[in-house]
Amino acid sequence: MTKGINLKRIKEVQMLKYQDVAEKIKQMIYLQEMAKDTQLPNIEGLINQYQVSRTTIIKALNQLERHGVIYQVQGSGIFVRQPKKKGYLNFLESHGFSVDLGDLPGSSQVFNVDVIQPNSKIKDHLRCEDDEQVYYIKRLRYVEGEVYGFEQSYYRKKLVSYLNKEIAENSIFSYVQDVCKISIGFSDKYFKAIKLDAETASYLGLQIGDPALCVEEIFYTTAGEPFDFSQIIYHYDNAKFYVQSHSK
Amino acid sequence: MTKGINLKRIKEVQMLKYQDVAEKIKQMIYLQEMAKDTQLPNIEGLINQYQVSRTTIIKALNQLERHGVIYQVQGSGIFVRQPKKKGYLNFLESHGFSVDLGDLPGSSQVFNVDVIQPNSKIKDHLRCEDDEQVYYIKRLRYVEGEVYGFEQSYYRKKLVSYLNKEIAENSIFSYVQDVCKISIGFSDKYFKAIKLDAETASYLGLQIGDPALCVEEIFYTTAGEPFDFSQIIYHYDNAKFYVQSHSK
Repeated sequence: MTKGINLKRIKEVQMLKYQDVAEKIKQMIYLQEMAKDTQLPNIEGLINQYQVSRTTIIKALNQLERHGVIYQVQGSGIFVRQPKKKGYLNFLESHGFSVDLGDLPGSSQVFNVDVIQPNSKIKDHLRCEDDEQVYYIKRLRYVEGEVYGFEQSYYRKKLVSYLNKEIAENSIFSYVQDVCKISIGFSDKYFKAIKLDAETASYLGLQIGDPALCVEEIFYTTAGEPFDFSQIIYHYDNAKFYVQSHSK
Repeated sequence: MTKGINLKRIKEVQMLKYQDVAEKIKQMIYLQEMAKDTQLPNIEGLINQYQVSRTTIIKALNQLERHGVIYQVQGSGIFVRQPKKKGYLNFLESHGFSVDLGDLPGSSQVFNVDVIQPNSKIKDHLRCEDDEQVYYIKRLRYVEGEVYGFEQSYYRKKLVSYLNKEIAENSIFSYVQDVCKISIGFSDKYFKAIKLDAETASYLGLQIGDPALCVEEIFYTTAGEPFDFSQIIYHYDNAKFYVQSHSK
């Protein structure tokens, strides 16, 4: 039993270390404004620079590769990938919008934070019990003062037992992690282009029938339990996204 | 020198093994139509079943987790994630469209395969030399007989020295890999909702001003060299996508 716990601890410390090194390498790339294809020091050089083990460096590099920060060419070296395009948001790192914005100043206008009985669609997505209640939040999201998206989200009260307007004006996801101690595991996103209806058009300051990207997302805890369903309808002129794929 | 080559070989064999096991586990989940949250055998069980090392199983599971096929709960087990939603395409695995379609029957109507001088936007994306030429291909993509998207793509002639209509009617990406021996490394996707212009609307059988998802993507070789730029404008009613994210 004790052995098990120790092993788990060691694993956690190691995870933190390689993630920390990955973050430092990323910061170095961004702060030095390295152009695409700039060659980084080789593995030996990085071991020296960060004073960590080879395993840690390799794990950090693999994470950076998966996240589209670098690419590794066997027998040739480690290179910088396309730096983030200005004005485009990372579509994969949009946990509850905040992470998503990078350095851009974002804000929210909250219309309501209500406890409701979910309709059958929401119930189905969140796998709610028959009499379960959810928090229903309606917000307009702004980036740099521009309307960005209209969001309706539903949190299971069973898992997020308290929410209010102040929390919803800031990052619900930080609150959910820090206060409700929910460990966020994964999410399923579904999206398509749609025509705006009257209500959403008026929220976004657009016309009925204008185009929009509609993204529906179910968020799960690390234990695989759904805790949040959200639908965001994005302003077609203000919201642009990027995704960095990797064949590995 | 010899040692280096041997190490590389060993690494490649190992990669194939874990990828092979990952593929087998995935097939088992799909063929047995396992529901979401079905528990898989534990690591010992999988070692037994596939007769491979612990390292191979762990690597296979980590790949399946990254690809959204399973989730692992520490101390609890390995579980099936949401199976693919019918009618939605995997937005991340859309290398040149074919992989993307899964089991759906897809086809292409090719309008032209021309060698041209790229304009400055294409030149910039593909980092072409001043006098470099590209293949310009215009296709309509169909899935199950429905118009799906209108694609314009540009391949650097320097890297893809020959293309024709027949190839373009099938998978250009298979050809590029198998015949041109290009090893596909990664891609950058940029996308937003747009209003259709007259030309694209007529190709898609829609009205001017109708909504669409416009996806621009630059594909790179494993050596980091861009070889293809493509723009696909998707039919808003026929094209729906999903993405499975993971916090790790």
